[in-house]
Amino acid sequence: MSERFRVTYRVFAASQGEAEARAEGVALEQTVEIPRDVVPAGFVEDVILGRVEEVAAEGEGTFRAVVSYAPESCGTELPQLLNVIFGNSSIQTGLKVTGLDLGPLGSVFPGARFGIAGLRRLGARARGPFVAPVLKPMGLSAAELAAIAGACARGGAHIVKEDHGLAGQPSAPFAERVARIGAAVAEANEATGRRCLYFANLAGPAEALPEMAEQAARAGAHGLLIMPGLFGFDLVRRMAGPAGPGLPVMTHPSFLGPHVLSRDTGFTHGMMFGTLQRLAGADISVFPNVGGRFGFSAGECREIVAACQGPGPGLPILPAPGGGMSPERAGEMLAMYGPDTMFLLGGSLLRAGAGIGAAVARLCEEIERVGG
Amino acid sequence: MSERFRVTYRVFAASQGEAEARAEGVALEQTVEIPRDVVPAGFVEDVILGRVEEVAAEGEGTFRAVVSYAPESCGTELPQLLNVIFGNSSIQTGLKVTGLDLGPLGSVFPGARFGIAGLRRLGARARGPFVAPVLKPMGLSAAELAAIAGACARGGAHIVKEDHGLAGQPSAPFAERVARIGAAVAEANEATGRRCLYFANLAGPAEALPEMAEQAARAGAHGLLIMPGLFGFDLVRRMAGPAGPGLPVMTHPSFLGPHVLSRDTGFTHGMMFGTLQRLAGADISVFPNVGGRFGFSAGECREIVAACQGPGPGLPILPAPGGGMSPERAGEMLAMYGPDTMFLLGGSLLRAGAGIGAAVARLCEEIERVGG
Repeated sequence: MSERFRVTYRVFAASQGEAEARAEGVALEQTVEIPRDVVPAGFVEDVILGRVEEVAAEGEGTFRAVVSYAPESCGTELPQLLNVIFGNSSIQTGLKVTGLDLGPLGSVFPGARFGIAGLRRLGARARGPFVAPVLKPMGLSAAELAAIAGACARGGAHIVKEDHGLAGQPSAPFAERVARIGAAVAEANEATGRRCLYFANLAGPAEALPEMAEQAARAGAHGLLIMPGLFGFDLVRRMAGPAGPGLPVMTHPSFLGPHVLSRDTGFTHGMMFGTLQRLAGADISVFPNVGGRFGFSAGECREIVAACQGPGPGLPILPAPGGGMSPERAGEMLAMYGPDTMFLLGGSLLRAGAGIGAAVARLCEEIERVGG
Repeated sequence: MSERFRVTYRVFAASQGEAEARAEGVALEQTVEIPRDVVPAGFVEDVILGRVEEVAAEGEGTFRAVVSYAPESCGTELPQLLNVIFGNSSIQTGLKVTGLDLGPLGSVFPGARFGIAGLRRLGARARGPFVAPVLKPMGLSAAELAAIAGACARGGAHIVKEDHGLAGQPSAPFAERVARIGAAVAEANEATGRRCLYFANLAGPAEALPEMAEQAARAGAHGLLIMPGLFGFDLVRRMAGPAGPGLPVMTHPSFLGPHVLSRDTGFTHGMMFGTLQRLAGADISVFPNVGGRFGFSAGECREIVAACQGPGPGLPILPAPGGGMSPERAGEMLAMYGPDTMFLLGGSLLRAGAGIGAAVARLCEEIERVGG
């Protein structure tokens, strides 16, 4: 085990020399943030200061730079770890985070509490992908949202998930919403003998979130949806960890787009929607599927899957592509994503109207048929 | 007063028709997130659904699109307001947020509690810019950081601000750090008769932040530094608002870079480092000065200043360019930024060693001389 953790950056530079200078700049910027000649001798210079471990040509005009950092630069705090990985350097162009090796921090950030295996136990689903309709649109009443949830659960949905846009709207206040949906899903589970999991969207004023999470758990929610781009990754850690309500956490990419959309800033798709979500403790990571109205490529989606299911941080988690799933495309989607996936069913499902449960059932049957 | 709030987007499109279709897509995506043909009639369609108010050519291949939203889509919650402004749409390319008109939400989000005038009262500085050395590097002990703070305060610094990288490092744990620095600044103020303001960096586990803020206030901190990119904008609102410790809030751009670095995603510089910070309740907004190791242009910096000091949300706040200030450049910097500014003094100040107080004094005198 290394004594330092390592971050790999893609550096956009014209030469090896320029790339090395950039890497040395990152090592300073992300730790001491002072010129090299005034770094205090001893502990600060020897331990705290970032250390360039490797700079190598990668592609045309790009270099792979590995910088190592001391655990003492972030202690045991996730926000500060992210701050060291890419705080100030996020404001410089020509630099992208492509890898993270936690080294000695692996035990500090244990990752998901449930992971894929834990979700299968909770949902009593030993094999095959999870089909997850989204409860929306905002503006519906709590009773209307609960009716959709109940119909989907009776139809065979493995998970029903609230839309990330359901917050404290007056049309469906949080307490009433989770109570009604929790009850509707429990009733459906009672009727079917299955165990559909209900994920409530944890969105509200910062000071209210811990109590809201407990409220959701008491109302029968089996999991929480969290947007780290709006609430910070540390809320995921807080809720997924021992002081949280003990429910699995699904993360949503809202407000995080600019961190992946540019070629030369931010994070790779795998780092953002795989590694960072696992680091924070998420069990399921939502991202937009290839095709549809977001521009992710098939390669970027595969990269996210690999980052969700590969070695660490912690347990492998479910990648959750949104959009594109239908009975007609079930075979193709399964071939691309494999069975350890959650498929989000978006707004087009609402076309089925009162037949929404039957539409979910038809999709689940087709997934079984093609071998999910 | 309009009944809806309005967001202006820059849409990258090949034609007016394409831009209009994109704008309609945004109006759906940011509210109901379902296809147009299944939007429920009545309240959802008439009120909740985003409404395209205007689409007009702006520049080559860019269009200005104004979309209005109902207050009922976000209630009184800042994270949900940001979610409606740019949640899912942040994951689409060719779209940038350029303007916000709060309309009826102006009273819900009142902005800064202190603003420029309040900071001048707190710091007993009736006119001229604020000179603000940064306390760093991480890895120093609390006593060493306090010694720098005391020397800077005695030298005439108007504000001493902790580096955003000072978190819960074992070398200087939060409680000891704020106690020692608070005491050092109080002692210096006692000696000089001036009122140097100490801003403590509020960074730690999400669940500990409210108590840490109170602890900083008790230790004599006069303000808090917060990184909304890592902790969420709602922490700024929480700490700047009536339930916080009653201190002004300075915001830091860590982790927010990708939101401004791309031409065709995220926010304009003025929106991100002016409007959004004011919306959340910040009193001072830190950003990298033109020149130096970050790539902001003079125009982008001026845009931030205008957005910090122009009409709303709430009171005008201090823009705080980091880097570039020196006795030699004081005249030029003042000419560019004007007196309602906080100038951050970075790591190069540490070159003065034990003479750091004298270096601060010399800069303050030069600023007086050139008319600050």
